[in-house]
Amino acid sequence: MHELARRARTAARSLALASRAQKDAALLATADALEAATERVVAANALDVEAARAEGTPENVVDRLLLDPDRVAAFAQGVRDVAALPDPVGEVVRGSTLPNGLRLEQVRVPMGVIGMIYEGRPNVTADAAAICLKAGSASLLRGSRSAARSNAAIVDVMREAIAAAGLPADVVQAVPADDRSSATHLMQARGLVDLVIPRGGEGLIRTVVEQSTVPVIETGTGNVHVYVDADADLDMALDVVLNAKTHRTSVCNAAESLLVHRDVAEDFLPRVTKALQAAGVTIHGDASFAAVAPGVLEASDHDWATEYLSLDIAAKVVDSLEDAVEHIRTWSSGHTEAIVTRSIDAARRFTLGVDSAAVMVNASTRFTDGGEFGFGAEIGISTQKLHARGPMGLPEMTTTTYVVTGDGHVR
Amino acid sequence: MHELARRARTAARSLALASRAQKDAALLATADALEAATERVVAANALDVEAARAEGTPENVVDRLLLDPDRVAAFAQGVRDVAALPDPVGEVVRGSTLPNGLRLEQVRVPMGVIGMIYEGRPNVTADAAAICLKAGSASLLRGSRSAARSNAAIVDVMREAIAAAGLPADVVQAVPADDRSSATHLMQARGLVDLVIPRGGEGLIRTVVEQSTVPVIETGTGNVHVYVDADADLDMALDVVLNAKTHRTSVCNAAESLLVHRDVAEDFLPRVTKALQAAGVTIHGDASFAAVAPGVLEASDHDWATEYLSLDIAAKVVDSLEDAVEHIRTWSSGHTEAIVTRSIDAARRFTLGVDSAAVMVNASTRFTDGGEFGFGAEIGISTQKLHARGPMGLPEMTTTTYVVTGDGHVR
Repeated sequence: MHELARRARTAARSLALASRAQKDAALLATADALEAATERVVAANALDVEAARAEGTPENVVDRLLLDPDRVAAFAQGVRDVAALPDPVGEVVRGSTLPNGLRLEQVRVPMGVIGMIYEGRPNVTADAAAICLKAGSASLLRGSRSAARSNAAIVDVMREAIAAAGLPADVVQAVPADDRSSATHLMQARGLVDLVIPRGGEGLIRTVVEQSTVPVIETGTGNVHVYVDADADLDMALDVVLNAKTHRTSVCNAAESLLVHRDVAEDFLPRVTKALQAAGVTIHGDASFAAVAPGVLEASDHDWATEYLSLDIAAKVVDSLEDAVEHIRTWSSGHTEAIVTRSIDAARRFTLGVDSAAVMVNASTRFTDGGEFGFGAEIGISTQKLHARGPMGLPEMTTTTYVVTGDGHVR
Repeated sequence: MHELARRARTAARSLALASRAQKDAALLATADALEAATERVVAANALDVEAARAEGTPENVVDRLLLDPDRVAAFAQGVRDVAALPDPVGEVVRGSTLPNGLRLEQVRVPMGVIGMIYEGRPNVTADAAAICLKAGSASLLRGSRSAARSNAAIVDVMREAIAAAGLPADVVQAVPADDRSSATHLMQARGLVDLVIPRGGEGLIRTVVEQSTVPVIETGTGNVHVYVDADADLDMALDVVLNAKTHRTSVCNAAESLLVHRDVAEDFLPRVTKALQAAGVTIHGDASFAAVAPGVLEASDHDWATEYLSLDIAAKVVDSLEDAVEHIRTWSSGHTEAIVTRSIDAARRFTLGVDSAAVMVNASTRFTDGGEFGFGAEIGISTQKLHARGPMGLPEMTTTTYVVTGDGHVR
């Protein structure tokens, strides 16, 4: 591990000096190489898939692991999209001339070495490597054991293309996933690794946060709420709730809980219950919801706390906006909350009251996404307050340095 | 500890809704109250000082602990200065209307609860509490045991004034410093405390970084270098070296190592050695420095690694700018490095090559400072890459949230 990290640091120093043109050329060459190597990548993946099936892995998990030529083409295109984005490195974030004539500039510079610890989908390998490279950092990619052959094939193809384009191959390295200790070593390589980003389930993220001595950005878990205010347009509320819950259930910005103000419960509960059930959603509701329709299951604290990632929703009637905020502050993972309301005052109180990375006013929670926000690429959605909060694009993968220029200035 | 943190969280929620006018009024009332309570604070401090002397604490450490009416007046004025600064909360950092008509705003919001773990000087108590309050966060202040009575008196006075001004007293709380475990509990109160900032010696900072499960911003240690390039104006270089080393030795932006390009060594070494020695500086030099003058001690790796904080400097001749960069990357703590040169190209290579929070070109390292940078207040100087790097002012004590406003937008 230390040897990998040391090589990453050396490579990162060369990469930090590379121009945007050099980085983009390497990325475009990588994308072409990945497409050209489709057969090789798919063949490696087939071995992973076979092994997963032999271990009795459920088919929905196997599907996440599976690569076909379309999926390879999709992540190759993702690498091209990253090449097309502006280079964050060198951006002057802040600048001024101080009263004494010193020129002060805060400039974006590469982070250095970024460790990614992730589960499942092998497309993360190409995505993360491309984003880190464009942001001027070397990546150490520690995927899951189940995708080890797929990830190794993708990394090999990328390294060959990067080296052929004149950058050091070691800007992208796979960390062996044979045993758990490689992840532990990665997250404890303080001084060699500048940042670790875990992507995956709650268990993985908690482990990294607790054990890492390298700074971490937490991503992902989304116990997301939609609150329908007393002043809501109920047609709009119905659209937003249905979209937030059913547009795609397995993603972190999907709604998991519905809170409805008591003043509109009589009108809204029958409509939303019918529509959700018609869409195949199981409602885990409080007594008010249970009274409206058969088939509503009784909600417990477990439901308020759960990120279902499925066609399930927890549902509750609240007495006030403040009750909704209180419920959210108690149970939310701090990802995204939405309010549907016509009231400026209600929107303001909700926005100031909750404590989450994103707040939607009259919009579906599904919009919390780097692509939707116009960031072009996204390495994850931060649910912590430090460094980056919400969707993280290229600038969030950099740090800054102050460059101060004088003419012999002394104090 | 959990009880303190819970009270801080509750207070932080009220504080987050307070207007700038309310926060400034509380700060000004606090400043007045501190001055009015000078006798009480100085009396409490006298007990700390007496106990410290009884324990045989060295006088220079006692001096850091000591409060007199002037020092109380100085930190009261510091609190007024914080009140005069703009409110970072509510600042729109980024905003746009997306192609689909969604309005996207990234807004600064309070961090929540900030834990400070610090040593020595009791003025940090008032400074940190004021900065956190202005930035909308509650503070949990864990000072050193030796300053416990002083800190308690300062916190009591502040809490009374804050409550009288209509904000919850619990936005400022002292964490008992009776034993080490209170610091451990503070840094492991994940979910209750949003950020921990250690201020003090290397040992304290390392302990917090290793043991904290709450996100940390590392501050402070400064193994700071001045590099005199082949193209330097040697008069300027002499000024910069002397100022960086001798203007104030006990601070983190003071120079600790001098690197001189071989091409100018013959001219520069006798001059700089003479001037440093005349200023009372002990030089820990390589063979080139030792050959120039008597009294130069032989440098070992220990010297390259040491933050002296005294009238000592490590000194070395390097063969090239790249050697200087390599030395700095090996030994620096990533705080501040300076180059003296007339060459644009050398300045560029040095700036891109080192990996530190601040780089000075033809200016003393002593300028890495929130006050000098025009930030008005400074809670410390971050030497890490995540969230904040370099001097941290009020904006660095906040986080952001994305507020997305639509008109029933769904995907």
